Amino acid sequence: MQKFKVTFLPENLSVLAEKDKTILSAAVSAGIYINSTCGGDGICGKCKVKVNRGQVTSQPNGLISILERKDNVYLACLTSIQGDLEVTIPDSSRLHFDKLTPEELEERLSGLYSKVEDIWPQNSNFEDKVFKHSPFSSKLYLELSKPTLNDSISDLERLYRALRKYEEFPVIQTGLFNIRQLGQLLRDYDWKVTVTLGKRNNTVEIVLIEPGDTTKKNYGLCFDIGTTTISGQLVNLNSKKILGTKAAYNQQAAFGSDVITRIVHAAKPEGLSQLHKAVSSTMNEIIKELAQEHKVDLNDVNCIVCSGNTTMTHLLLNMDPAHIRKEPYVPTANFLPVLRAAEVDININSRGLLSCVPGVSSYVGGDTTAGVLSSGIYQKEEPSILIDIGTNGEIVLGNKEFLVACAASAGPAFEGSGVTSGMRASSGAIQKISIKKDDLSVKYSTIAGVKPRGICGSGYIDLLSEMLDTGIIDRSGKIKVQDKRVRQSDSGMEFIVCFKEETQDGKDIVINEADIENLKRSKGAIYAAASILVKHLGMDFSVVKKIYIAGGFGTYLDIGKAIKIGLLPDIDRSKFIFIGNSSLAGSREILLSTQAMAMADNLAAKITYFELSVDPGYMDEYSQSLFFPHTDLEKFPTVKFNG
Amino acid sequence: MQKFKVTFLPENLSVLAEKDKTILSAAVSAGIYINSTCGGDGICGKCKVKVNRGQVTSQPNGLISILERKDNVYLACLTSIQGDLEVTIPDSSRLHFDKLTPEELEERLSGLYSKVEDIWPQNSNFEDKVFKHSPFSSKLYLELSKPTLNDSISDLERLYRALRKYEEFPVIQTGLFNIRQLGQLLRDYDWKVTVTLGKRNNTVEIVLIEPGDTTKKNYGLCFDIGTTTISGQLVNLNSKKILGTKAAYNQQAAFGSDVITRIVHAAKPEGLSQLHKAVSSTMNEIIKELAQEHKVDLNDVNCIVCSGNTTMTHLLLNMDPAHIRKEPYVPTANFLPVLRAAEVDININSRGLLSCVPGVSSYVGGDTTAGVLSSGIYQKEEPSILIDIGTNGEIVLGNKEFLVACAASAGPAFEGSGVTSGMRASSGAIQKISIKKDDLSVKYSTIAGVKPRGICGSGYIDLLSEMLDTGIIDRSGKIKVQDKRVRQSDSGMEFIVCFKEETQDGKDIVINEADIENLKRSKGAIYAAASILVKHLGMDFSVVKKIYIAGGFGTYLDIGKAIKIGLLPDIDRSKFIFIGNSSLAGSREILLSTQAMAMADNLAAKITYFELSVDPGYMDEYSQSLFFPHTDLEKFPTVKFNG
Repeated sequence: MQKFKVTFLPENLSVLAEKDKTILSAAVSAGIYINSTCGGDGICGKCKVKVNRGQVTSQPNGLISILERKDNVYLACLTSIQGDLEVTIPDSSRLHFDKLTPEELEERLSGLYSKVEDIWPQNSNFEDKVFKHSPFSSKLYLELSKPTLNDSISDLERLYRALRKYEEFPVIQTGLFNIRQLGQLLRDYDWKVTVTLGKRNNTVEIVLIEPGDTTKKNYGLCFDIGTTTISGQLVNLNSKKILGTKAAYNQQAAFGSDVITRIVHAAKPEGLSQLHKAVSSTMNEIIKELAQEHKVDLNDVNCIVCSGNTTMTHLLLNMDPAHIRKEPYVPTANFLPVLRAAEVDININSRGLLSCVPGVSSYVGGDTTAGVLSSGIYQKEEPSILIDIGTNGEIVLGNKEFLVACAASAGPAFEGSGVTSGMRASSGAIQKISIKKDDLSVKYSTIAGVKPRGICGSGYIDLLSEMLDTGIIDRSGKIKVQDKRVRQSDSGMEFIVCFKEETQDGKDIVINEADIENLKRSKGAIYAAASILVKHLGMDFSVVKKIYIAGGFGTYLDIGKAIKIGLLPDIDRSKFIFIGNSSLAGSREILLSTQAMAMADNLAAKITYFELSVDPGYMDEYSQSLFFPHTDLEKFPTVKFNG
Repeated sequence: MQKFKVTFLPENLSVLAEKDKTILSAAVSAGIYINSTCGGDGICGKCKVKVNRGQVTSQPNGLISILERKDNVYLACLTSIQGDLEVTIPDSSRLHFDKLTPEELEERLSGLYSKVEDIWPQNSNFEDKVFKHSPFSSKLYLELSKPTLNDSISDLERLYRALRKYEEFPVIQTGLFNIRQLGQLLRDYDWKVTVTLGKRNNTVEIVLIEPGDTTKKNYGLCFDIGTTTISGQLVNLNSKKILGTKAAYNQQAAFGSDVITRIVHAAKPEGLSQLHKAVSSTMNEIIKELAQEHKVDLNDVNCIVCSGNTTMTHLLLNMDPAHIRKEPYVPTANFLPVLRAAEVDININSRGLLSCVPGVSSYVGGDTTAGVLSSGIYQKEEPSILIDIGTNGEIVLGNKEFLVACAASAGPAFEGSGVTSGMRASSGAIQKISIKKDDLSVKYSTIAGVKPRGICGSGYIDLLSEMLDTGIIDRSGKIKVQDKRVRQSDSGMEFIVCFKEETQDGKDIVINEADIENLKRSKGAIYAAASILVKHLGMDFSVVKKIYIAGGFGTYLDIGKAIKIGLLPDIDRSKFIFIGNSSLAGSREILLSTQAMAMADNLAAKITYFELSVDPGYMDEYSQSLFFPHTDLEKFPTVKFNG
């Protein structure tokens, strides 16, 4: 196979790439992450690069302007290498994996736990849920009696006998690694050792045997593995204290922004291992920094609990996710055995254990189970709803008797993807907007208070609500006014939110009719899903006691505005509770309590998956939801428009 | 470190060896096995080599004659390398690891099972013991229902659901390896797979998932890992048929002939790994040949059960045995977890499981547990005795209520070691002897019917009995006659059994007074142990219903003669039953029945270890046993001498 040298600027990094491979794949092998929201399908237009020198062939597409074409700008994903190349990757086409700033972290991890030092007693939102402190891995210091001629049981049985004085473990397992070193260890350290016990699928494993008393050093990690953001916490398993929290963008973003594009990428040669490597290295960076900052030796981190959607869990475990996206949408496994973290390349103690929170189905994963656990909806008498608004919006309805979950393909619009000026909720994202009715002037605030770069989910909810209120758009989403901020674009009329003079990169921040259509479909999908789910169980929203809002929106989501655009049902505002990253909170409870771990198993088995696409009423309800707030205004009795 | 080239003849193999290392260690690294019964302590004198060229230094010892010294013959274990060497290793100093001949095999594996094709129903010796056929690993062919939108549980749960239609497994474990390939495998093979299940410490593991129906190919192995001989059987786990049996000398013999010298060797640098490699490679050779002969693919061999003494088990698992020989004689573990065979370098299916029969103490190992299991003494109303006559003689007394075991350090004399013309029970070993009273002429028969090379255990029992009967020795073991066969030697008077004209290597086959002393100590240790054990429980031999004789002696042991010399107690001859290799038979039962596996665990926990050395009466009983048959002739009422 003919190979060419491809040099990337400004890094001046060169790789050899096979003829006909895309510039995008060459960049990946050079370790450069190019934005590729659509996963390399030539749809998102985010991967523009400039070919300074050399021969390429490129597929036609409508995303490169005539000016750009003259300047030798190409989509990296549609352009194949035909000779030695020199390629410049502009900053705007790059994925930035910097750690989140404290403000970004606050935004993402807002809700119940971000300021909670000790999770027992529970935050008041979760008054009645208390699990016994019994961490995933625990340490016991043992001073064994020395063997004599009259008490000459083997070293291992002596250890078991001492352990069983503490607790009647029915089955204790010990790997050959630990058995092999046991004899010398006991004698070298005068029969005084610390045993680390891990819970492993209804048995107890001796994970580690250390000399002397190391019981004070017992740490664990919990992770929420989001498609976009990965968040981790380092926890002192003895004191239950959260030592630190860190989040970073999932490096898998280089291979597509949503689970479907990731699954498609996993089917390519090397694709699965690239995705596995991306998630594990994102996690390892977080782990390393947490350990360094809090002066914890990674050898003293003995367990980790991971909560993610079903695709993320498959990719973390290097399991082929292909069948998740093919009807009838079957994952390889929802319940996974406890593994050694090293088996999936996660760097904690080399014998340390890793548990994945069990999921329910292909589109209702362990993150939802963890959310149900931490929200406590499974304990209440009256039915509540848990909504996680994301690309794949999960909705759970239930109480102590029943739990039913569905997944709404909302699309990534509220995560800032697939909309012209969309961005994730990070520095420079507009998160609050108000528009003055008389002159249509726009006031906004951004995350971190810097110049705006784009609009994130909560910003779009504000924007749509304000545009409705001021009559800029009608209830179908068409732009109805004439103004200096309104102009024609390739995607219908568009409204200029920020003029280029105000923005970071000197480009207008806009919303056009195609964007509005996208956002309308997203909000419609979530509302229709919740609505059908409630109806499926013979209820209506009025009987729902609480609606828990989970996910990255955090406290910046304006409930009134979300109801006004028809994203959330029109019920008493006081029934809505933000619970932030409930997936992370649930995984931490599992880390700290094997009772919670058992409960997560129960919940995942108990939650019934309701497949929306087979409900005959869903498409009708969805179509009716493609208005602001809805075709049937009687469903939104409190929504009034100023206009 | 200065290194020299050492060349071994006649192979003409060269290795580099560090200055001051012994010739013995250089031979080991060249892969040449030199006889070293004493483990390199310069005691046994078996490792004589001829240094043709080069400089050495050697420790003084009394084992090299003046003639040999002139001929540059040295003990390889006491001679250190001081320059480039050329060394000839004579055949007489070599360990031969040829497979046993069919006759040798017959000799070793005689007893209940050697001709038994199907172990169910049991041999009539074991009338009441029947375990349910439920092999260590079993195969199930499953045709899974295909997933639909209404039945979209994950692939793994679908598999579990199908399995649980067959049996209500409480815990099923599956490794990540199998989970990773599951999704594609099920779809590629139309949801038809064969699952191999293995029992693993109170849980069930999915060992393998194979496409289609492979249930017919389900094989297992059982092994008796003896200090001297390793025996293995290939078993069809479906039909319970023994496909083949093979035995080979334990390659560890190069590092010493008994467990103590092996333990000493294990403490040397690389010693443990050399011993582990020796046992695993002996086993792998047997496995390979069994598989080839019976046209079984090693990938279809999914489990193996190993039964050995505690030291052999430690060495197989690459576990340091050091503390076994140090008071208070504590092994690292008696009960070992089920492992993957690959973890200990045994070549069957790479996911296949390996189980070690649990032992009782440092000197009562899994081979004894297996013997108790296969003898069935634990099921009888009346007490029986199980005796395994070997270097370490194990004796168990018990019935369905109690089981007590002790170990007698008999020494290796009955295994042909430490006695002038001793050899193992292999080709050329004299196994039966009679002496004519009038002219002291000797008649004998050898294993395989070839010219004699030495005397094995059953031969020595015959020989001593005949020498007593003919008055050649008195009851203290002193040679009392004058004859052309009797002469003075360095070790007292000696009796020539075969003149050099009759023998394979042209050397006289003799027994001298030091040999007789050795043999007397061996038989005395075993008798005294059995006697003290019976007394310890307030019994005498008359209440013992059966005495089961296990071990390599097989059917060639003459019970009457063994009683005459005082090795076995003087009770009704019909109470003695030969059960051959009861360790191998027990391991096969465990292989074929998880009921037997559970019973072995129960037995190992139930058997009480009785430490002879702490019994105040033992030394006295032992001293009294240092006569033929005993100081107290009333204990041997039926023993009469012709002389």
